[in-house]
Amino acid sequence: MKLPATVEITEVGPRDGFQNIKTRIPTEDKLRIIDGLAGCGFKKIEVTSFVHPKAVPQMDDAAEVLRTIKRKYPTQFKCVTLAPNLFGAERALEMGADEITFVISASERHNLENTKQTIEQSISAFESVCKIKGDVLIRLSVATAFTCPFMGMVPPENVTNLIDAGKMSGADEVMLADTLGTANPLQVETLLGLLIPRYGNDFVLHIHDTYGMGLANVLTCLTMGITRFESSVGGLGGCPFAPGAAGNIATEDLISMLHMMNVHTGIDLDKLIEVAHLAEQLCHTPLSGHLIRSKKR
Amino acid sequence: MKLPATVEITEVGPRDGFQNIKTRIPTEDKLRIIDGLAGCGFKKIEVTSFVHPKAVPQMDDAAEVLRTIKRKYPTQFKCVTLAPNLFGAERALEMGADEITFVISASERHNLENTKQTIEQSISAFESVCKIKGDVLIRLSVATAFTCPFMGMVPPENVTNLIDAGKMSGADEVMLADTLGTANPLQVETLLGLLIPRYGNDFVLHIHDTYGMGLANVLTCLTMGITRFESSVGGLGGCPFAPGAAGNIATEDLISMLHMMNVHTGIDLDKLIEVAHLAEQLCHTPLSGHLIRSKKR
Repeated sequence: MKLPATVEITEVGPRDGFQNIKTRIPTEDKLRIIDGLAGCGFKKIEVTSFVHPKAVPQMDDAAEVLRTIKRKYPTQFKCVTLAPNLFGAERALEMGADEITFVISASERHNLENTKQTIEQSISAFESVCKIKGDVLIRLSVATAFTCPFMGMVPPENVTNLIDAGKMSGADEVMLADTLGTANPLQVETLLGLLIPRYGNDFVLHIHDTYGMGLANVLTCLTMGITRFESSVGGLGGCPFAPGAAGNIATEDLISMLHMMNVHTGIDLDKLIEVAHLAEQLCHTPLSGHLIRSKKR
Repeated sequence: MKLPATVEITEVGPRDGFQNIKTRIPTEDKLRIIDGLAGCGFKKIEVTSFVHPKAVPQMDDAAEVLRTIKRKYPTQFKCVTLAPNLFGAERALEMGADEITFVISASERHNLENTKQTIEQSISAFESVCKIKGDVLIRLSVATAFTCPFMGMVPPENVTNLIDAGKMSGADEVMLADTLGTANPLQVETLLGLLIPRYGNDFVLHIHDTYGMGLANVLTCLTMGITRFESSVGGLGGCPFAPGAAGNIATEDLISMLHMMNVHTGIDLDKLIEVAHLAEQLCHTPLSGHLIRSKKR
């Protein structure tokens, strides 16, 4: 199999992970975990999400987290933050985010549940964000790019329509998210086989591991030339508005597979496993990553 | 990707799974789980293992389990049993097993730990079994075909030497076992790429999911024309003599991925998920399968 020499991983545990923990994680514990991640060599860490605190109370310290981390690590890694709407993106810009991941679902119903906006309204907000972004990188995250908890299989034209609109608006990057973790390798190959000839292979892939197919889907992506992934330490994660979705692929499982196949990531795996154990302890929830379980034995 | 139209799955939970449960599972509970599996449509179920009861006390009811199941299901599915030595194989033959999986490790040290015999002694025993097998199918299982807990990477020539010896002795089938669950897709491709031109692709693959790469390894096998796998309901399993090895790939996770990719198995997935929940309950241990966790939510 033809594999890339290097893969870039954005660690999203502090956002996609924390937001799915029911009990309040103290801000200082969040910062401890991000400190640990900073020591592993990531070049991009999604540190928080500017969402409405009523929708996701866990993220009500977004400004404090971002400000503290930016002060401590002004240049070591890019601070990514998620935003689901114009207001959130404005706040992220104001607080000094290096990159903003703006989420729009390819499924109308999921977009409504997730952002309280129609896809059209979200695209309009995205256009506005692109106009004011300055030199901040704006990434369009196509949520439910494969399947939707409400409509099932998502037609590929929903995805291409959204990508076209995003690119037209000025998106710097496009991410495809398997929000539910229900995509299978054949479906990944089919969608990428449609998108790559049209847009190139410069996509970021955000994959969940609900049904255990996460790394099989990554493998499919790798053989198609995809070199950028998002994942979550320990497998923290899920989607509060996608019933049944489990956590992201665990970053340490992903990196372990990549390193075994001689794909370079620049991440210190041993240190990362320690952070995964710390995250499990501070979040008071058993995490779904495989490596942390096997290393405990 | 080119995928086979049909895949044959041997369910090994009642052997590889049960043998790794520390607390005694009453024989009647084992039989209930096998009954459940019988209702799912499997054509082959590994029902027990004829090992020394001192080494694996959980399997001391092997004769009773096999006898009861054979009486109840004389023809519905093949009753597979495992044997690590001549004595175990003789007992299995005597008790009416339809197929015997005879285990020899490709790593000398693991074979000693697992069977108390050198590889040479095991091969000699295997020859003897093949002479008395009659019309019972004898499968050589090459344990630690990829990595060994003691020697690390296992040289492919250890594997080919063992296959050659097994075929010479009269093996009906050869199985490759990733006993530790540490094989990665590139390694699977490399070993199969060496073996298939020499022996054809008629191998059975037995894959564990220690590091979460189980289904990625299956995917690699599928694209190389492998159509037979062993897996374990709920992800039950491990190896008592391979420190750190986690369970098998969960049969329902495997089947879910295959069905999603339009690969036929003949197994009723919904019924199987019910059996996985039953196994979790009767074995008093949380199982590692992904589907049962996501379906619980």
